[in-house]
Amino acid sequence: MKFAEKSCTEFVNVLASKEPVPGGGGASALVGAIGIALGSMVGSLTLGKKKYADVEEDIKDLMAKADEIRARMVKLIDRDAEVFEPLAKAYGMPKDTPEEQAEKARVMEIVLKDACDVPLEIMRAACDALEVIAGFAAKGSKLAISDGGCAATVCRASLEAAALNVFINTKAMGNREYAEKVNREANAMLDKYVPFADSIYSDVRAQF
Amino acid sequence: MKFAEKSCTEFVNVLASKEPVPGGGGASALVGAIGIALGSMVGSLTLGKKKYADVEEDIKDLMAKADEIRARMVKLIDRDAEVFEPLAKAYGMPKDTPEEQAEKARVMEIVLKDACDVPLEIMRAACDALEVIAGFAAKGSKLAISDGGCAATVCRASLEAAALNVFINTKAMGNREYAEKVNREANAMLDKYVPFADSIYSDVRAQF
Repeated sequence: MKFAEKSCTEFVNVLASKEPVPGGGGASALVGAIGIALGSMVGSLTLGKKKYADVEEDIKDLMAKADEIRARMVKLIDRDAEVFEPLAKAYGMPKDTPEEQAEKARVMEIVLKDACDVPLEIMRAACDALEVIAGFAAKGSKLAISDGGCAATVCRASLEAAALNVFINTKAMGNREYAEKVNREANAMLDKYVPFADSIYSDVRAQF
Repeated sequence: MKFAEKSCTEFVNVLASKEPVPGGGGASALVGAIGIALGSMVGSLTLGKKKYADVEEDIKDLMAKADEIRARMVKLIDRDAEVFEPLAKAYGMPKDTPEEQAEKARVMEIVLKDACDVPLEIMRAACDALEVIAGFAAKGSKLAISDGGCAATVCRASLEAAALNVFINTKAMGNREYAEKVNREANAMLDKYVPFADSIYSDVRAQF
């Protein structure tokens, strides 16, 4: 059974346990799915309202993008669990002889790359989500303004949480050139989109 | 069926829709439950490890607290939906005559208080969660350090998102004295625990 199909209660119970999956990556993806869903809610509460008739097409466009990002985030919940299994196995490989050490290092490099790729994808999805949420916050119904602010802070958390799951894996990589390239991309996303999310949130908070 | 018992996929789908519940409050509570579960994961991965034998009792104590907070957060997902229904009904009450206006104002005051209380409870739970997470980050296994950082940023989002759900309801209250009292409590929690969460996260990030 997919983790995305588990009940919310069961998901958090397994997350809290010593079961290896879901882990921080899967949790980041679920948090991202919740964040972009909060953005969609702003769209859903705006659509069809006379007062917002002139932004109807913009809202529809944002909603289509948000649906796509939510679907991507939901898939990444289970994708993260899939790449963890081979990683856990590789960590358990013997390294008693030079041959075993070389083989373990070779396998580790492959599985670490996959284990980095998934949280990196979650980060990209969280950045895309924040762009869409900024649109909802600017153009959506003022009655749903708090949901736009919630969406921003929740996607910010998805981004920051996924980043740590990138860093923990790049740290273990032998190929430092590749590791540093990935770290640069992750850091660039944090540098741009954490303040971006904060500014959406502050703008909303200032309206109360 | 309780929202906490819905699958993760279904929860985010209904959240994205124009269905009135779950809303921002319920989403904040689920995010909080995910955050504290990430903290518990640090504990689960620390318990029974020889290297951490001297903090075993502290970890057990933190884990008991984390379990209690997770259960509280999960309950608040549905509690938020329960208080929204009467609020939505009250917003729809007629106000054509002075009598109707007075009756609507009287009912609104009651339901707004409930609608504030739930996100305020979520905020308190998120603050409690962050205290526990700080303990896990300080004493837990270094192998699970990234999960502690994830836990902190996710509970930060729960706190910030719940706050907006407090403010949107206090704004509509007639009893300004009570509204300002609630706002002061909410602002005090944000002022203390947002930087507190940021410092846990930065400490973890600095280790990569």
